[in-house]
Amino acid sequence: MKFNVVHTNSSARAGILETDHGVIETPIFMPVGTQGSVKAVEQRELLELGAQIILGNTYHLYLRPGIDVLRTMGGLHKFMNWQKPILTDSGGYQVFSLTELRKIHPDGVTFKSHLDGSLHHFTPRKVIEIERAIGSDIMMVLDECPPFPCSEEYARESNALTVKWAKECLQAVKEIEPYYGFHQSLFAIIQGGTYKNIRALSAKQLVDLDFEGYAIGGLAVGEPTEQMYELVEFTTQQMPLQKPRYLMGVGTPENLLECIERGVDMFDCVMPTRNGRNAALFTHYGKISIKNAQWKTDDQPVDKECGCYTCKNFSRGYIRHLFQVNEILGLQLASIHNLHFYLSLMKEARQHILADDFSQWKKTMLEQFQSNKTLIEN
Amino acid sequence: MKFNVVHTNSSARAGILETDHGVIETPIFMPVGTQGSVKAVEQRELLELGAQIILGNTYHLYLRPGIDVLRTMGGLHKFMNWQKPILTDSGGYQVFSLTELRKIHPDGVTFKSHLDGSLHHFTPRKVIEIERAIGSDIMMVLDECPPFPCSEEYARESNALTVKWAKECLQAVKEIEPYYGFHQSLFAIIQGGTYKNIRALSAKQLVDLDFEGYAIGGLAVGEPTEQMYELVEFTTQQMPLQKPRYLMGVGTPENLLECIERGVDMFDCVMPTRNGRNAALFTHYGKISIKNAQWKTDDQPVDKECGCYTCKNFSRGYIRHLFQVNEILGLQLASIHNLHFYLSLMKEARQHILADDFSQWKKTMLEQFQSNKTLIEN
Repeated sequence: MKFNVVHTNSSARAGILETDHGVIETPIFMPVGTQGSVKAVEQRELLELGAQIILGNTYHLYLRPGIDVLRTMGGLHKFMNWQKPILTDSGGYQVFSLTELRKIHPDGVTFKSHLDGSLHHFTPRKVIEIERAIGSDIMMVLDECPPFPCSEEYARESNALTVKWAKECLQAVKEIEPYYGFHQSLFAIIQGGTYKNIRALSAKQLVDLDFEGYAIGGLAVGEPTEQMYELVEFTTQQMPLQKPRYLMGVGTPENLLECIERGVDMFDCVMPTRNGRNAALFTHYGKISIKNAQWKTDDQPVDKECGCYTCKNFSRGYIRHLFQVNEILGLQLASIHNLHFYLSLMKEARQHILADDFSQWKKTMLEQFQSNKTLIEN
Repeated sequence: MKFNVVHTNSSARAGILETDHGVIETPIFMPVGTQGSVKAVEQRELLELGAQIILGNTYHLYLRPGIDVLRTMGGLHKFMNWQKPILTDSGGYQVFSLTELRKIHPDGVTFKSHLDGSLHHFTPRKVIEIERAIGSDIMMVLDECPPFPCSEEYARESNALTVKWAKECLQAVKEIEPYYGFHQSLFAIIQGGTYKNIRALSAKQLVDLDFEGYAIGGLAVGEPTEQMYELVEFTTQQMPLQKPRYLMGVGTPENLLECIERGVDMFDCVMPTRNGRNAALFTHYGKISIKNAQWKTDDQPVDKECGCYTCKNFSRGYIRHLFQVNEILGLQLASIHNLHFYLSLMKEARQHILADDFSQWKKTMLEQFQSNKTLIEN
C-alpha cells in the first residue's frame, strides 16, 4: 500500500491511497456492506455512484457465511464480485456492543453469537486469520472500544489492552500469509475515550509500532459533538502526516466536513443507507422525511442539485408513495440517493482542498444544510 | 390501438400490438407492478430486461396513492416514470378475493378496504373513471370472477353480470374522455367458470360488443391444470382471430408455453417476482430453492444459459448467502433473474413461432424444465 498526501489546505488533506485493488482518492466515504452487501444497492450501482472502497464486517462475515465458505469462494472480493478495495472492521465494536453476551480476557474476548447464542472466542490472531480469509485490502486490529462515559482508569487500562492486541495483530500478520496473492494492510485503532492524555499515549504507542494506517476509534458513542470535534482535532495532531487517518463510524454530512477540516482522510457510517431505509433523505438544504404528507403531489426531485439515478428519474411524490405502500424500490432509491449525496460531498470536498478554499466552501455548505429554504418554497 | 397477427404456427400466434406508448411484440409476459412498482426492480432494469408492458392494479392504486394524486401527477406513466405501455387490471379480482369484506349488487360491488376497513363502492363507470385517472394504455372491464368450484347456475348468473358491466364500461369509456391525450383501449373479460357452454356464451356476447381485446378470466383459481388447458383451448377458439387474447394471472413457465400453443398472446403473473422474493429461482433445468445448503459454496451462476445481470455477475453461493442473512439485494437479484427468465422465454417462443417449429421447441423446453440434470452434476 502507498499513501501520498498530494495537497493540504490548512489541516485538510487531499491524498492518494494505492492498493492492489486500485486507487482511492481521499478524503473518502466508505459505504458499509456489513454482510457482503451494501444494503439495497447493487454492486454495479456502487460503481456508478463512484464508490472507491467499501466496508465489510469481520464479526458478521465470520458468523455468516463463515471463513470456510469465504476461503472456498476465493475471498470476499470474488464472493460478492466487488473488484475495488475492501476494508474490514475487526468486529471489536460489534462484539463490545454485545454487553450482556461477552467477556473480556487479556488474550481476547469471548462472546455469544447474536444469532444462535453459540459461544465464540476472538483473539487478535484469530481476527487476523478471519481477515486473511475475507481478503480485505485494509484490515483493522482487534481493539477494545470503551463506553461513554468511562473513568480515566478504565480508558487507560482499555488502551493498554488495545495496544497489546495491536502488537499481537501485527505479529499474526507476519506469521499468516495472505491467501489470495495481494497485499493486505493493517491499520491500528487509537482509543482513549475522552481523555486527551490517553489518546496521546495511545497514538504514541501505536505509531511506534509502525502500522500502515491509523484509525480514531471510540468516538460518536454518545459524547457531545463539540467534544468529538475537539478530540478528533487533538488526535490527528498526534498522528503521522504520511499515513492515512480513518475516523470510524462517523457520521452526518456536517461531521464529515468538520472532521476533514481537522485532518481526517477516511470515513464510514451506516447513516446514508440506514437513514435511507427509514425514509430520511439528505439534501443540500437539509435532511427531509420523504414520508411526510407535504410531498404527496410534489413532482420535483428529492434534491434539484443532485445527479443520481433517483433524482434524475423520480419525484418526491413517487418516492413518498413507495414508502407509504412499503415497496422495496423505495429503499433502493433512497439508499442510492443518500450514498450519492455522501460520495459526491467527499468528491467536492477534495476539489475544494485542492483549490485551497475548503473552509469557505464548508461554511457555505453547512449554512445550506441548515436552511431548508428551497424545499419550503416549492 | 392496432393489433396484427404477423404469423401463426398451428394455433400459436406471433403478433404486433401498437399503442400510443410503443409497440409490443406478442406473445408477451407482463411484469406485475401492482402499486406502481414491479417489486424490487428499478424501472431502468425493466427496460434492460426487455419488458415491453407492465401491469398496474386499479384497486391498489385507487386506495394508494389515490386518483387525486394520480391526476395531479399526470397519470401513472409520469408518476412512476415508465414510458412504455401499462395495462390495468380492473381490481375486480382483488375485490372478489375479499370474500368477507364485499357485497355484490347489480350495479357494482361494495367492499371494505384491506388497509383500514373503510367502505368503497366500485361500479363499472367508477372503474373506468379510475383507469382514466391512472392513464393505462389497456384498461380492463370490471368483472365478476366466480370461485372454483361453482355451480353452473352461479357461473351463468355471474357471466350475465360480467357482460352487463362490460357494456356499462364501454358506455363509460365513450362518456369519459381520456385525461392525458393518448388512446386507452378497453379489453373485456370472458368468464364462465369451468362450463364450456357458458364460456362460449360469454365470448359470443362480449365479441358482439366489439372490444379492442379480450381476456380469459377466472382460470388458475384452483381447477386442475389439464382442465385449465382444455378451457383455454376451447375459449380461444371462440375469440376473434384479429384481436389480442390475454390469459389473466397465469402462470408457470410450463403454463405459458402450453397456452401460447393454444392461441394466447398475453400473460401476467406475480410468480416470477413473488417466487424470487421467496428464494425460488427458475432455470432451464427446473426451479431451485437458492436457500438450500447444497449451494453454499457453489461458484456457478444460477442458470448457465442465462444472460441476466444476476447470472453474469453472481454465484449461487453468494445469492444463497444474501437470502440466509436477509439482505435486500437477494430479493433484487432473484427478481431480476426470474423476470429475465420469463421475458426471454417469451422472446424465444416468438422466434420459434416465426420459424414454424414452436411445438417441437416447446417439447424440448418442457423436458429440460423437468430434468434438473445439469444442476445435479455440479
